[in-house]
Amino acid sequence: MQPLLKVYADRRSQPSRAIIIFCRVNRIDFEEVTVDLFKREHLSPEFKKINPMGQVPAIVDGRFRLFESHAILRYLATVFPGVADHWYPADLFTRAKLEAILDWHHSNLRRGAATFILNTVLAPSLGLPSSPQAAKEAEKVLFRSLGLIESMWLKGNAKFLLGNPQLSIADLSLVCEIMQLEVLGDSERDRILGPHEKIRSWVQNVKKATSPHFDEVHELIFKMKERMAAKRQSEPSKDLKTASKL
Amino acid sequence: MQPLLKVYADRRSQPSRAIIIFCRVNRIDFEEVTVDLFKREHLSPEFKKINPMGQVPAIVDGRFRLFESHAILRYLATVFPGVADHWYPADLFTRAKLEAILDWHHSNLRRGAATFILNTVLAPSLGLPSSPQAAKEAEKVLFRSLGLIESMWLKGNAKFLLGNPQLSIADLSLVCEIMQLEVLGDSERDRILGPHEKIRSWVQNVKKATSPHFDEVHELIFKMKERMAAKRQSEPSKDLKTASKL
Repeated sequence: MQPLLKVYADRRSQPSRAIIIFCRVNRIDFEEVTVDLFKREHLSPEFKKINPMGQVPAIVDGRFRLFESHAILRYLATVFPGVADHWYPADLFTRAKLEAILDWHHSNLRRGAATFILNTVLAPSLGLPSSPQAAKEAEKVLFRSLGLIESMWLKGNAKFLLGNPQLSIADLSLVCEIMQLEVLGDSERDRILGPHEKIRSWVQNVKKATSPHFDEVHELIFKMKERMAAKRQSEPSKDLKTASKL
Repeated sequence: MQPLLKVYADRRSQPSRAIIIFCRVNRIDFEEVTVDLFKREHLSPEFKKINPMGQVPAIVDGRFRLFESHAILRYLATVFPGVADHWYPADLFTRAKLEAILDWHHSNLRRGAATFILNTVLAPSLGLPSSPQAAKEAEKVLFRSLGLIESMWLKGNAKFLLGNPQLSIADLSLVCEIMQLEVLGDSERDRILGPHEKIRSWVQNVKKATSPHFDEVHELIFKMKERMAAKRQSEPSKDLKTASKL
């Protein structure tokens, strides 16, 4: 029988990976439908019927359609009875603190990381315009965000956010965002994450807690990283050339 | 007796207003503590003890501290037994759809509106640098967001988001964001909202459903609008001068 739940995703998108890993770890039966962002399939009339916003991830669960990855994670954690409480705790206060992190993510870590990646390696590799000024501002937001995660939510020997003993949907969402920095290449990733030891061990903790699915679902991003590094080597002036168009 | 709940807010901030209106309408006993953003009180060591992020709104409820306005609205709607279900419906599917709107808000309506206001009237009036390019991009995001709200969530004769018969925390949050456009002045506000009849009647519906608190809590933003308009008249070249610094 076909699974009732369809997940529309591109594994090169960080929120798509969070949903897929969540489903895998929690043994939720689902069908993955790839929506290739590079082929602009997210803008096709067919996909717009699934999600009029034209964004991945999106889900169809029987008659029910939903988009926005945090909303999807909350929904999946609530509707599937087999999902352990730590993913999205019923406790009012713990949940409220996790909601604050999920909300904070949008205008801070996500805005910083995604805008930085777009304006440094992604746009040039896709032949799209990029802005060095936007990259510079995004880098500031990214550095500030990483510092805040460490000082606010990974205090002491915290294994997961808020010092919780097990991971939540917020850990998964934020760590998938940080993994996206891989496409920048090793030296840029190390420059950014180097000073953040707590962030690095937290990433490892989330990886271990969701093994082997974490690595498997991230395979495509490592392939993309290799391809982009090879491209940079063969066309060393490409980044600058595109940036100078502005 | 002092109320247990303290709300740290500046009524010139749209998410601050959403929290205050929510508490008023739901007869939640609270103490409002003004954190003056223009005097940079949100960055003071005293306030950083309340919210290390240095942002309003934030709440302290007995021993419990919380920031991020959507997380606060969810918390207040859950913890106070007198709050009617329509604000944050217990029904799994309705709630999930509202969560998607709340999540979407951050990187769309909020990003568009707040960045546009900052780079057109706010930064120049505060003597801060502003970017015409950023304003132009934000305007696009803002227009797109208003169009999507109408076509996705205010279909047909919808009185509130999702066609719900009563308003939710998402209606309140998004409408307070849209009200911020008042500071642009009448002609700019009309240029932006003019083509969006559904948005305009939805704003009126939210206003009516939260009367008289809505108008009262918005008084300060109308005063700010008057002051900024007077300033623009007395220094007509100020905006351009600041913009040209970039």
